[in-house]
Amino acid sequence: MRIGDKHYRAIWMEEDPGVVRVIDQRHLPFEFAIVDLRNAEDAYTAIADMVVRGAPLIGACAAYGLYLASYKSSELNWCEEVQEAGSRLKSARPTAVNLSYAVDLLLEKVVCAGSRASMIKELFHLAHRFTEDEVLRCKRIGEHGLSLISEIHQKTKKPVQILTHCNAGWLACVDYGTATAPIYQAFDQGIPVHVWVDETRPRNQGARLTAYELKEHGVPHTVIVDNAGGHLMQQGKVDLVIVGSDRTTRKGDVANKIGTYLKALAAADNRIPFYVALPSSTIDFNLESGEEIEIENRTDREVSFMEGWDEEKQRETHIRVVPEGTFVHNPGFDITPARLVTGLITDKGICEASEAGIHSLFG
Amino acid sequence: MRIGDKHYRAIWMEEDPGVVRVIDQRHLPFEFAIVDLRNAEDAYTAIADMVVRGAPLIGACAAYGLYLASYKSSELNWCEEVQEAGSRLKSARPTAVNLSYAVDLLLEKVVCAGSRASMIKELFHLAHRFTEDEVLRCKRIGEHGLSLISEIHQKTKKPVQILTHCNAGWLACVDYGTATAPIYQAFDQGIPVHVWVDETRPRNQGARLTAYELKEHGVPHTVIVDNAGGHLMQQGKVDLVIVGSDRTTRKGDVANKIGTYLKALAAADNRIPFYVALPSSTIDFNLESGEEIEIENRTDREVSFMEGWDEEKQRETHIRVVPEGTFVHNPGFDITPARLVTGLITDKGICEASEAGIHSLFG
Repeated sequence: MRIGDKHYRAIWMEEDPGVVRVIDQRHLPFEFAIVDLRNAEDAYTAIADMVVRGAPLIGACAAYGLYLASYKSSELNWCEEVQEAGSRLKSARPTAVNLSYAVDLLLEKVVCAGSRASMIKELFHLAHRFTEDEVLRCKRIGEHGLSLISEIHQKTKKPVQILTHCNAGWLACVDYGTATAPIYQAFDQGIPVHVWVDETRPRNQGARLTAYELKEHGVPHTVIVDNAGGHLMQQGKVDLVIVGSDRTTRKGDVANKIGTYLKALAAADNRIPFYVALPSSTIDFNLESGEEIEIENRTDREVSFMEGWDEEKQRETHIRVVPEGTFVHNPGFDITPARLVTGLITDKGICEASEAGIHSLFG
Repeated sequence: MRIGDKHYRAIWMEEDPGVVRVIDQRHLPFEFAIVDLRNAEDAYTAIADMVVRGAPLIGACAAYGLYLASYKSSELNWCEEVQEAGSRLKSARPTAVNLSYAVDLLLEKVVCAGSRASMIKELFHLAHRFTEDEVLRCKRIGEHGLSLISEIHQKTKKPVQILTHCNAGWLACVDYGTATAPIYQAFDQGIPVHVWVDETRPRNQGARLTAYELKEHGVPHTVIVDNAGGHLMQQGKVDLVIVGSDRTTRKGDVANKIGTYLKALAAADNRIPFYVALPSSTIDFNLESGEEIEIENRTDREVSFMEGWDEEKQRETHIRVVPEGTFVHNPGFDITPARLVTGLITDKGICEASEAGIHSLFG
C-alpha cells in the first residue's frame, strides 16, 4: 500500500539474503523507520516488542525468522538450531494463532535428513510463499467484503460510515489488511466511505496506525476515543463495523484487541452489522469456545505511560499518565462471542460466525 | 475527604469574603494547586476550562460565582450585573443540569427591589446552603448505596469488586462524591472493596482523579483502560458497577461521561448490577427521554494531545497523540437508556430507573 508516493509492504527482502526488512511500527505515524532483521532473535524481538504486530504480519515475521535461523545456522548443528528458533519464535506472543501456525507449517516441511544448503533454500521459498499467500488472502477478503459496503451505499446513496477498532490494516498484514481490505477496495472503486477510527488504548494502534494508513491512501476518516463508538451508533452515525481477529475458534468466537467486545455489544444493541475480517490462518480449528483462548496480559507500562510527539523538540517521547505506585491491569484482548458477530469475512467468502458457517467454507 | 493528613473540599471559602477557592483539577494527581476565584468570570472560566468539573461541583461553583458577581457588582447596576452573570455562568457547559439548576434556584430568590448589600448577604447564604445541601445529598447517597455493597459481601465473603467510570468522586461533588460515596462508606465500615478504575479517555478523569482520591483515602483500586471493562465482566471479576450522572431524565435515561453506555451494555450482557448514583439535583424533570439531552462536543485537542508527567523534568507536559491534520470527533457524554440501569442510588433512597421509580421517591 501507499506511503507518500511509494509502495510498501510491512515486511520484505531486498538483495541481501541475510536481511529481512520491516517498518518499525512503534514510532509511526511520527517517525518512519525501517528495521533490519538479521537473525531469528531479531525476529523474536521484533514480534515481542511489537516492532511488528498484527496476527498475519507476526506469522510472516516468524516465517522469515525461521529462514534467518537457517541462514545463520552452524554447519554442524543447523537442524537443531532451526527447531530451537521455532520454539523461541512461537513464544514471542501468546494470543495470535498465526505465530505457531506459521512456524509449524514451515517446520513440518523442513527435512533434516538433507543438507543445510537445501534447508536454507527451502525455508527461503516457504517464507516467501507463506507471505504471498497471506497477501493473497487479504486481497480476497477485500473482494468478498466489498459487497457489504457497496450494498449499503446502493441503499443509502450516502458515504458509508464504517467503524473499526485497533489496526487490522495492511501494516498488520503485510499488504491490504483484513478489516481495511474491503474499505480500500471500496474507496479505490469510487464508493464513498468514511471510517471512524477507534483510538485503541493502551497502545493507540487506531489513532497511530489505522489513521496513518488511511491518510496515506487518502481515505476519509475521523479518530475517536474508544469510549465514543457506542454513542455514534446510537446516533445512527455508523452503518457497519469491521474489525480484525487474532484468533477465531471453530464456533466463531473471536479474540481481538481489548475493547472489541464492547463495540460488538453496541452494534447488536443498535442493529448495526458487525463483521470480523480474517484470513483462514486465523481460525483455530482446535478450539471450540472463546473461553479456551489464552488472553495475554501485557506490561503495566503500556497503560501508565503514553507515547507521542513532543512538538517543541520535534521528537517522540513518553509521559506518565498514571501516578507511580498505582496498580494497573492490562489485558491485551477480549473475546467477542459468536452470537454478537453478524458474519466472518474470510478469504474464502463471507459466512455466519458459527461452526456450520465456518464448515461451509472450510469443511 | 482526605488528601494526605488534611481534610479538603473541592470548593470552599476562608476569611476573605471576596475569594472562593477551588482545587485545580486539571493538574491532579501530579500537581496539587489551589485557584482563587475573585469574580463571576473567574467562576465561568473555572467551569468552562474544567478547573472544576463534575455536575454537582459545577453547580456549587456557579452558585458561588453568582455570589461573587454580587460582591463585585457596581452600586448602580448590581441587579442587572448579577442577572447577566447568571446567564453567562449557565452557558459555561451545556450537558449538566446542575448548572442552570443552581443559577435559577438562586436568582429566583434574589430580590432586586431591596439593597445591593442585602442581595450580597442573601447570595452568600444561598451559595453556602446550596453547597451544604449538595454535600448532604452525597452523604445520603453513600448511606443508601452502602446496602448494595454489604449485601454482595455477605453473599460472597470476598472483597467486593466495583467498576466505576470517570470521576464521580468527591472532587466532582464538593465532598463524598456520588458513585464513590457508597464505596467510601463501605471502606470506612471495614467491608473489603476493590475498585476497577476506568481510565476515561479523553481527559483521563478516572486514572487521574478517581485513582488519586481512592489512593489518598486508602481504598484498594486498579486502573484499567476503558476498553478492558467488558472483558473483566466476562471473566467474573466485577460484582457491581456504579457510575455518576450529569443529567437523568424523569424516565431514568442517564447522560454521563462518554463510554458509560458501553459499560452498561457489558453489565447487562453479564448480568452484573449497574447502578447510577446521583443527587436529586441531577434529575431533569422537564425531560422525558435521553434523546432530548444536548450532548456537548468538546475540542479536538482533548483527543489529539495527552497530558501527563514528564519524569525527567518533573513537571506536567503534553504530547501529541494524533497526527496533525487528522480529523477528530469528541463527544463528551453518552446516554445510557433506563432499560440498562439496574437502579438509581439517590439521596432519597434507591429506586428503579423508570418514571414510576423516580416518582416513588420524588413524586
